[in-house]
Amino acid sequence: MAIITLLTDFGTKDEYVGVMKGVILSIHPAAAVVDLTHEIAPQDILQAAFILDAATSCFPIGTVHLAVVDPGVGSARAAVAVRSAGHMFVAPDNGLLTLIIAKGVDGVRRIENDHLFRKPVSATFHGRDIFAPVAAHLSAGLDFEILGPEISAESLVRVHPDIVERLGENKIEGCVVAIDRFGNLMTNITARTVEMLQRRFPDQKIGVLLGQRFIPTLHQTYSAVNVHQLLALIGSRGYLEISANMASAADQLGLGRGDRVIVLPEALHEAFIS
Amino acid sequence: MAIITLLTDFGTKDEYVGVMKGVILSIHPAAAVVDLTHEIAPQDILQAAFILDAATSCFPIGTVHLAVVDPGVGSARAAVAVRSAGHMFVAPDNGLLTLIIAKGVDGVRRIENDHLFRKPVSATFHGRDIFAPVAAHLSAGLDFEILGPEISAESLVRVHPDIVERLGENKIEGCVVAIDRFGNLMTNITARTVEMLQRRFPDQKIGVLLGQRFIPTLHQTYSAVNVHQLLALIGSRGYLEISANMASAADQLGLGRGDRVIVLPEALHEAFIS
Amino acid sequence: MAIITLLTDFGTKDEYVGVMKGVILSIHPAAAVVDLTHEIAPQDILQAAFILDAATSCFPIGTVHLAVVDPGVGSARAAVAVRSAGHMFVAPDNGLLTLIIAKGVDGVRRIENDHLFRKPVSATFHGRDIFAPVAAHLSAGLDFEILGPEISAESLVRVHPDIVERLGENKIEGCVVAIDRFGNLMTNITARTVEMLQRRFPDQKIGVLLGQRFIPTLHQTYSAVNVHQLLALIGSRGYLEISANMASAADQLGLGRGDRVIVLPEALHEAFIS
Repeated sequence: MAIITLLTDFGTKDEYVGVMKGVILSIHPAAAVVDLTHEIAPQDILQAAFILDAATSCFPIGTVHLAVVDPGVGSARAAVAVRSAGHMFVAPDNGLLTLIIAKGVDGVRRIENDHLFRKPVSATFHGRDIFAPVAAHLSAGLDFEILGPEISAESLVRVHPDIVERLGENKIEGCVVAIDRFGNLMTNITARTVEMLQRRFPDQKIGVLLGQRFIPTLHQTYSAVNVHQLLALIGSRGYLEISANMASAADQLGLGRGDRVIVLPEALHEAFIS
Repeated sequence: MAIITLLTDFGTKDEYVGVMKGVILSIHPAAAVVDLTHEIAPQDILQAAFILDAATSCFPIGTVHLAVVDPGVGSARAAVAVRSAGHMFVAPDNGLLTLIIAKGVDGVRRIENDHLFRKPVSATFHGRDIFAPVAAHLSAGLDFEILGPEISAESLVRVHPDIVERLGENKIEGCVVAIDRFGNLMTNITARTVEMLQRRFPDQKIGVLLGQRFIPTLHQTYSAVNVHQLLALIGSRGYLEISANMASAADQLGLGRGDRVIVLPEALHEAFIS
Repeated sequence: MAIITLLTDFGTKDEYVGVMKGVILSIHPAAAVVDLTHEIAPQDILQAAFILDAATSCFPIGTVHLAVVDPGVGSARAAVAVRSAGHMFVAPDNGLLTLIIAKGVDGVRRIENDHLFRKPVSATFHGRDIFAPVAAHLSAGLDFEILGPEISAESLVRVHPDIVERLGENKIEGCVVAIDRFGNLMTNITARTVEMLQRRFPDQKIGVLLGQRFIPTLHQTYSAVNVHQLLALIGSRGYLEISANMASAADQLGLGRGDRVIVLPEALHEAFIS
């Protein structure tokens, strides 16, 4: 079993993803290459960081995750490899791994061993020339140490701290981080933090405030509410999601990425509505 | 040879399809996972039923087909597995398998054995937590009987009977069920029924009526007519299709899904045009 | 290692690509099938010819490349197989292989051995019924000679000669052949020809003229210029590309496929601007 996942902003209309697979299979013919998505909005590191984090736990130990959203390709930004929870990650050092390294790191290498690279190394497509061959070699059993010098996890680039939810005394503040195909609004607010807030207010329903709209409780399933009605629930990623039963919550609310989401006890919500 | 096909309405911009593959490969690393499509319109069970039926016969005996278009996820709708013609199908019981079971069934199980599921089972993503692991176990050789209790094929949910063409005395009535990327209108009218009608009127050309437009005969290939001209033919799926040579029939006709299509002898068509 | 790549204009919303994979795996279960892209604009042979050429060199010797952009399906156009540089290509004879055969050919066969085909052969989907099974058999080791009669490389259809750049005395004339997802304009002007021009004018910068806009030099990386600024560089395919740092050159320039691109020494460019 040797799985390599791919996450990029390359889209699928050009040959970019296909040639990365050609490079990988040239080095490690037995690898199973799995696409996470290639439709990250161009150069949207935050969205990619969330999807990478959401997907990882469904893959077996030993999987190599290759993530290339790389606006700084050809500049001085480093290429890095990270070991975390039995998985390996190969990516530019630009914040893509923010949520992975937040969960703990077992080793970080700066990728500098150019014996591993496809030659000549282009200035504009390190996905093909550096990241794909390194991921293939790691998947085939290459020693992690051979990649390059060890660096500290602390030195890695993180994306903006807004990516992390904030738990206050009586509320959680977060934001919409992505909208999925069904119009579900994915937030950065975790099930765990919602549970912490609930324990502080054990007799109250916990609701969700979006602009002037308040959803007074959390449900378990889409079908718990009427067709087209809004609801809030902990989604399959373990994050709070705002959905609508058989409809698009994004369309109904007119909200998008970065918009503020507040979780709070029902009794307190009126103070937040002007 | 262990093939698992995937058919969903998940799109490819999120990680949903990728994580299903992660779950499958965790259980059955040697499986070859093949995407049929993930671009079923959200929650469009009818379209998915047709594509599943069209694709099946190109795969070898023993293939497991996993179909997840699941507006009722988390509700009381059942999860089922069906054996038919040497293939296995895993899907929610919501009509997705209507055309498969119409061709004959060798066994149906209600999927209830939660030892097979990914834990915890989310309320919103049974594709990952129930259907993918069950398909992987079946592909790896699990006894069909272990899935859960046997149920009758008759008890399975069917989609609306309009999905089935109607052969009358001197005409076939059907409808457009899908429009493909090239603008071809796919109907639910089978080659076999067209042949039956032709045998009743052996000396007449058989034509196709769409609204006020009549196509007086069937052709074999797109290039049998002039560039941009409309034509009717039996498409590669074995169904009647309305096409235009190097152009989009859908654009030319302004027709869409559900619109009525009538097949009848040329001599009779004027009675149908007002 | 047995890789088969797929390049089509089928899109991914229908089951067409999936069923080709079903046919391939039925014949050659161990094949690794890699998508180059299926989003060639419908029937755009020129774009497909460029992508096929760009992708090939990243795959190992022995790879079979299956390309189906086939507006003439069902007409008299031939199906052909070509050996070139250790790779095999299977395609309709309509110009798709223009750039492959320009680099040298080790054998061409007209595909006529219908024992290899899926039966019945439809008139509208040779991708499934002819090209996929032939590619699978070749990948599994079938003798190339068994496909059908040998024909000369010279007899193969080429796309319009505009696909080839023209080197004049003091300039290179070419055109935009594709726009990628990031808005980069891909031209048909090769690095090699740019170097030849540079050697003739060793003391001058070489620039790029697009309409009334002149880019006075070539850079190595996107980040060599300011954010949003236009630049010209030799892209990862080995062709001249016009890009913008973290922005879309196509949007900024309002240029598209077929638009003229001239490469010339900086000192000469004013003569070309009216």
